[in-house]
Amino acid sequence: MADSLSDNAALARASQDLYAAVRRDAPLVQCLTNFVSMNFAANVLLAMGASPAMVHATDEAPEFAQIAGAVVINIGTLSAPWLESMLLTADAARQAGIPWVLDPVAHHATAFRRDAVRRLLALRPAIIRGNASEIIALAGGQSTGKGVDARDAVAQAEQSARAIAAAHQTVVAVTGETDYVTDGQRAVRITGGSALMPRVTATGCALTALVGAFAAVSKGDPYTAAVAALSCFGIAGQRAGALADGPGSFAWRFLDGLAALETDSLTRESPLR
Amino acid sequence: MADSLSDNAALARASQDLYAAVRRDAPLVQCLTNFVSMNFAANVLLAMGASPAMVHATDEAPEFAQIAGAVVINIGTLSAPWLESMLLTADAARQAGIPWVLDPVAHHATAFRRDAVRRLLALRPAIIRGNASEIIALAGGQSTGKGVDARDAVAQAEQSARAIAAAHQTVVAVTGETDYVTDGQRAVRITGGSALMPRVTATGCALTALVGAFAAVSKGDPYTAAVAALSCFGIAGQRAGALADGPGSFAWRFLDGLAALETDSLTRESPLR
Amino acid sequence: MADSLSDNAALARASQDLYAAVRRDAPLVQCLTNFVSMNFAANVLLAMGASPAMVHATDEAPEFAQIAGAVVINIGTLSAPWLESMLLTADAARQAGIPWVLDPVAHHATAFRRDAVRRLLALRPAIIRGNASEIIALAGGQSTGKGVDARDAVAQAEQSARAIAAAHQTVVAVTGETDYVTDGQRAVRITGGSALMPRVTATGCALTALVGAFAAVSKGDPYTAAVAALSCFGIAGQRAGALADGPGSFAWRFLDGLAALETDSLTRESPLR
Repeated sequence: MADSLSDNAALARASQDLYAAVRRDAPLVQCLTNFVSMNFAANVLLAMGASPAMVHATDEAPEFAQIAGAVVINIGTLSAPWLESMLLTADAARQAGIPWVLDPVAHHATAFRRDAVRRLLALRPAIIRGNASEIIALAGGQSTGKGVDARDAVAQAEQSARAIAAAHQTVVAVTGETDYVTDGQRAVRITGGSALMPRVTATGCALTALVGAFAAVSKGDPYTAAVAALSCFGIAGQRAGALADGPGSFAWRFLDGLAALETDSLTRESPLR
Repeated sequence: MADSLSDNAALARASQDLYAAVRRDAPLVQCLTNFVSMNFAANVLLAMGASPAMVHATDEAPEFAQIAGAVVINIGTLSAPWLESMLLTADAARQAGIPWVLDPVAHHATAFRRDAVRRLLALRPAIIRGNASEIIALAGGQSTGKGVDARDAVAQAEQSARAIAAAHQTVVAVTGETDYVTDGQRAVRITGGSALMPRVTATGCALTALVGAFAAVSKGDPYTAAVAALSCFGIAGQRAGALADGPGSFAWRFLDGLAALETDSLTRESPLR
Repeated sequence: MADSLSDNAALARASQDLYAAVRRDAPLVQCLTNFVSMNFAANVLLAMGASPAMVHATDEAPEFAQIAGAVVINIGTLSAPWLESMLLTADAARQAGIPWVLDPVAHHATAFRRDAVRRLLALRPAIIRGNASEIIALAGGQSTGKGVDARDAVAQAEQSARAIAAAHQTVVAVTGETDYVTDGQRAVRITGGSALMPRVTATGCALTALVGAFAAVSKGDPYTAAVAALSCFGIAGQRAGALADGPGSFAWRFLDGLAALETDSLTRESPLR
């Protein structure tokens, strides 16, 4: 990549510092996320030492955002009342200077989703996390994805990611076999993980939630926040994949692996390329 | 049973072919299912190689059905807005010639559920999957079930299943210690599974979702689709049960077992009787 | 504590009897609980031999309460339609003489929650289960809790618990490193559990659901019901914690442990202090 080896080493050290901050500060991460992922996302956040709060109703979600360290919005099981609350909460976060993260799940699948993401994008997410099909479609390209699962390779989405990041002044993280993070200028690839990950539901959604935890402690550095969260997933995913017998045993080994990350894992086993 | 041994062998081979098709085609299965089962059902579908999509809102569920291979409707945590969407989506699937599967969870428990199932039945599900208490009540019989869990034996529900299948031109799968599948004329029993299965929530709902995956690739053969899905559950359930120490370890071993089914499991270890 | 050793021995024996009743009667426990906890709470109830039913819609929840052994209301992912149903269902349970249990999740976090809990309290829950921050705030004290997770120690909440129990003629269970149960006059502490428990989401919510199962078979003795449920959690949690490598493996080992409790565990390994 354009980034030199020394840049990656500095980025790994900065990621490591954010990791220590998540463990120390236990940031409160408010998630408006889909029903499928709620339990797993909360467990991922807890395994890393963050404090999840699934608070979604119009009556309180914008108010709750004031005390959150970050807000995560995921449109997986979208409906009209949830969308209304997502828009209000993202706006409240934006106004309060609290970073919020967008997961545009399968936004290309229906008109309802396309419109929802268009309105959410206008509220300036600090970070967008999606799979290759979602990011390609977000940039106006022709993805081959039909449903929720990606059918495109991350490499095909890198240009789209850069374009979206530049146009919306945001950070875009595309995840797949090798991940890609860009702020429109800088970019880095992140290795690791396991072939079992796409066979466990909600791993992508849980990663978006974890990105929120790192954004909460990143003091306005969403690029490093995204890189740090993806690095944790890459390392813990690779370790769990080496031990698991299938997707069932992968899921709990992965949670154990996240909880067991050492203070220097992100520099010693840096997955940045 | 009326079916001869050679019939069962042919049925096992046809099931095996559908299994290969699920692995190869990764069918998109749209689930309007209950909150309790969403995560586990998605993990069961992913473990088998299918692609789950939990898309339920009125604003998009009928549109999404057009691109799905099958639709699964489960009334476990029913509410009025979900019922409206279920009716619209089942109708959209029916009109588009896409098979849809009904899971009438505890439909005998309240007037709201009884009415919901009556309206859903009129939209011609390709397959109905329920426990013995649910199927007996669906045929107008007196079940002893109170809540969600079955309190009747499958054998007591066989006649009800045949009657419903014949009256509604559908396939009925009754699951319990030994399962029973009928299209009103043919019928087969399926063994296997584990005594731990009813102690893990949402196993029945996840099975209904898997029936949808097989219906998606069955080219208009819902009988074989139901038999194939139940066979996979029977074999993987038996293997997981032999290794598990309790319901907690059963759940992940079962997912591992579904993912590890061999190309010839459904014929070599055929659970059909 | 004020209670003598002999009192605790009698309480352990009474708890043991309730445990046998749960296993024998498989009480139907209706849960109006949050989306994060539904699956885990249902699995905890099934592991103990109870029969969970997540039935929440206004159209049927009050009707369903008539056939339930107990009702559990948890405001974790509250919204206006759910609150309406919770109020109607709690009232239906109260009128039918069916015990109901309240879990006031993070009720101090927003005006919407504070108001919801005020209205629910007026409907006379048999038992309230919360963490220290929630119980302190419920008594009008100044808790340091911000989100969902407790930031206060149980010992700081004991006086609040007594005050609430006395004022509302209810039983209050405060859970944390060492639990505390009181009916305003009697009180007991319960040890056991594991440091991994707060790192697994929904353990508290699942405990509230289990308190419901014990309330269902307790014949009007909510104090012993709460003590028995917490004792099961304490013992199974301690055993799982001794074997687990992290929060992921803790969750399934804990379910296995609940299912494997022996007939005399609650007296032989009594965690009452």
